[in-house]
Amino acid sequence: MAIYADNAATTKISDAALETMTKCMKENWGNPSSLYTVGQDAKEVLEISREEIASLINADPREITFTSGGSEADNQAIRSAAAIGKRKGKMHIISTAFEHHAVLHTLDALKAEGFEITLLDVHENGLVIPGEVEAAIREDTCLVTVMYANNEIGTIQPIREIGQICRKKDVIFHTDAVQAVGHLPIDVAADNIDMLSASAHKFHGPKGVGFLYTRKGIPLTNIINGGAQERGKRAGTENVPGIAAMVTALKEACAGMEANAASLSAKRDALIKGLGAIPHSALNGDAVRRLPGNVNFCFEGIEGESLLLLLDDKGIQASSGSACTSGSLDPSHVLLAIGRVHDVAHGSLRLSIGEDITDRDVEYIIRSVGEVVEYLRSFSPIWRDLTSGKKQFIL
Amino acid sequence: MAIYADNAATTKISDAALETMTKCMKENWGNPSSLYTVGQDAKEVLEISREEIASLINADPREITFTSGGSEADNQAIRSAAAIGKRKGKMHIISTAFEHHAVLHTLDALKAEGFEITLLDVHENGLVIPGEVEAAIREDTCLVTVMYANNEIGTIQPIREIGQICRKKDVIFHTDAVQAVGHLPIDVAADNIDMLSASAHKFHGPKGVGFLYTRKGIPLTNIINGGAQERGKRAGTENVPGIAAMVTALKEACAGMEANAASLSAKRDALIKGLGAIPHSALNGDAVRRLPGNVNFCFEGIEGESLLLLLDDKGIQASSGSACTSGSLDPSHVLLAIGRVHDVAHGSLRLSIGEDITDRDVEYIIRSVGEVVEYLRSFSPIWRDLTSGKKQFIL
Repeated sequence: MAIYADNAATTKISDAALETMTKCMKENWGNPSSLYTVGQDAKEVLEISREEIASLINADPREITFTSGGSEADNQAIRSAAAIGKRKGKMHIISTAFEHHAVLHTLDALKAEGFEITLLDVHENGLVIPGEVEAAIREDTCLVTVMYANNEIGTIQPIREIGQICRKKDVIFHTDAVQAVGHLPIDVAADNIDMLSASAHKFHGPKGVGFLYTRKGIPLTNIINGGAQERGKRAGTENVPGIAAMVTALKEACAGMEANAASLSAKRDALIKGLGAIPHSALNGDAVRRLPGNVNFCFEGIEGESLLLLLDDKGIQASSGSACTSGSLDPSHVLLAIGRVHDVAHGSLRLSIGEDITDRDVEYIIRSVGEVVEYLRSFSPIWRDLTSGKKQFIL
Repeated sequence: MAIYADNAATTKISDAALETMTKCMKENWGNPSSLYTVGQDAKEVLEISREEIASLINADPREITFTSGGSEADNQAIRSAAAIGKRKGKMHIISTAFEHHAVLHTLDALKAEGFEITLLDVHENGLVIPGEVEAAIREDTCLVTVMYANNEIGTIQPIREIGQICRKKDVIFHTDAVQAVGHLPIDVAADNIDMLSASAHKFHGPKGVGFLYTRKGIPLTNIINGGAQERGKRAGTENVPGIAAMVTALKEACAGMEANAASLSAKRDALIKGLGAIPHSALNGDAVRRLPGNVNFCFEGIEGESLLLLLDDKGIQASSGSACTSGSLDPSHVLLAIGRVHDVAHGSLRLSIGEDITDRDVEYIIRSVGEVVEYLRSFSPIWRDLTSGKKQFIL
């Protein structure tokens, strides 16, 4: 039994995307900037890829910049909007407390450079209230950046409403859509999005490639200077095989999206029901406005890391939250942002299931998590304090 | 007949590197930051790769940071050294006029931020004189950045001597070694290098991956902020398959380096001899201190672009210089730096041959270039002016 339930951390490349990548490395390996045939063949693959990515999110090909992934795209989007703001004397940025670190740490850097950052509350259910975005916008606000769907608790933000407010107030709206692209229908025009970041390896594409959508008229600032690639806005020989494979993966993901979402949501809800039956457990994030494959629970009185290792022994590969911060011992900033206290936030489990999961897997996960939680509680000092009444239960 | 002679622009991935990449995408596709088996397996591949890269350039694994390529590595190296300098009030940087644009444009950005940049002369033969580096170093110099081998004219700089001077003067020494790694023996310790940039697709590895060597004790500045990957210095899920494939390619390149260099140099010299026989032609760059596969000529009275297109028709894929700037109509800044006048610099041809080239190919190239140059001159107004004595020949 081996169940991979950490698709929010990374996905396995699909067979079709792998085939595209391999074929491209063998046949279209030229430098797209070169004038001769091998180069121009690669350039054609690159530009067709750009058209296809654009059409999948209802953008114009000239609005797509290929990057090395979601983090780079987030960094470039925010840096670009900040540079525009600075030129106009507008140095206030609005975001939320539970963004990905690619956003939060870039904002930290900007803060050190003199920008003022307002982090909106995401409330108990992990959702931004559009009215609060509107209320936070000031004369000197240059950017609102709110993630499309959260990587840990899967909540899907009211992006269209936030976008509408930003458009009305003439403020650039960026969304880190790394968890959303390939999983939810994205329409940058209808959603009033000015900038959007995406990463291929989150939707069964290859690692090391992503893209940034930037609405026409918004000038980008380079974070990688050099050659004239990507209209001079992102230097470095284009990773054409990776880009082509990303397109294959995104086309597949979009084609199967509706059916996958229906099937995944049913399994997600079965997991939520089953894990919710474990005493002193609680779902993190909104039950309805949620990514189809995301389940995130807190279990009182246990350590998340031990839970993960014992689940791994049972063949279940899951995480306590973001993989990007697993080097750190701090509890998840996302769980703290939705009001979970330190102790409770430590006992978290994120399951991000994929299309390959079966109903039997779902049952096995519910049973296994129940057993492991019970086992860990059996020798947990916190649990003893809780059950003996020395401490109060929170969940 | 199809001869690829633009390996300085990009190389075809080797069969072994492609196999490593495919295998890794199938078997080690986990997120190296994840705690469970699939993640830890990927982490092991990542850390073994780091050890192998380090050992191939005589560095410590902790001194290797994986990047999306050479441009990113150049940007991060220079930004990091500049940040260190700024903290100490040292805002002077020394480089050369014929660096890659990933270096020059980063220096332009720093100039706008208040840094002073000295660009050293590379003289007629394209070589930096170490004594001139020493003379240029000031009390407030924070960085010397000189490319290991030039991407257009192939000249190999006296890196060890420059490194020695920088070490003595306590100035950080960075080298863009994108054209050197995998082609020349690199020993960062013996060469006194503090920081070194490399790119996998220049030595038959995949596109979209490279590395930055940074000597212990030199703190890096992020250009991509976010997760804690690469010791917190380069955010974004690691491209493990790309990194593993880069290692395979570099190991192959280093294993075959001596034999390849001998065979390539012989063919290079045959090309230099053959093309040198074309009237009013001249080799660009030093004849001896030169990359084994690099040939770069100017032919008076012709346009480089027409030359390339006609050679492409004959199955010879070459370039006029850097692929990264092929979108621009300006003549090569490298050729201008070695003193070629505008008109002559326009008629340039770079051949960067690979291991697959045969003696027959060499003969065919010499014959074809001769024919195409003659043909283009037959209706060139500049050539008419030159031959009629209206203008003076330069070459």
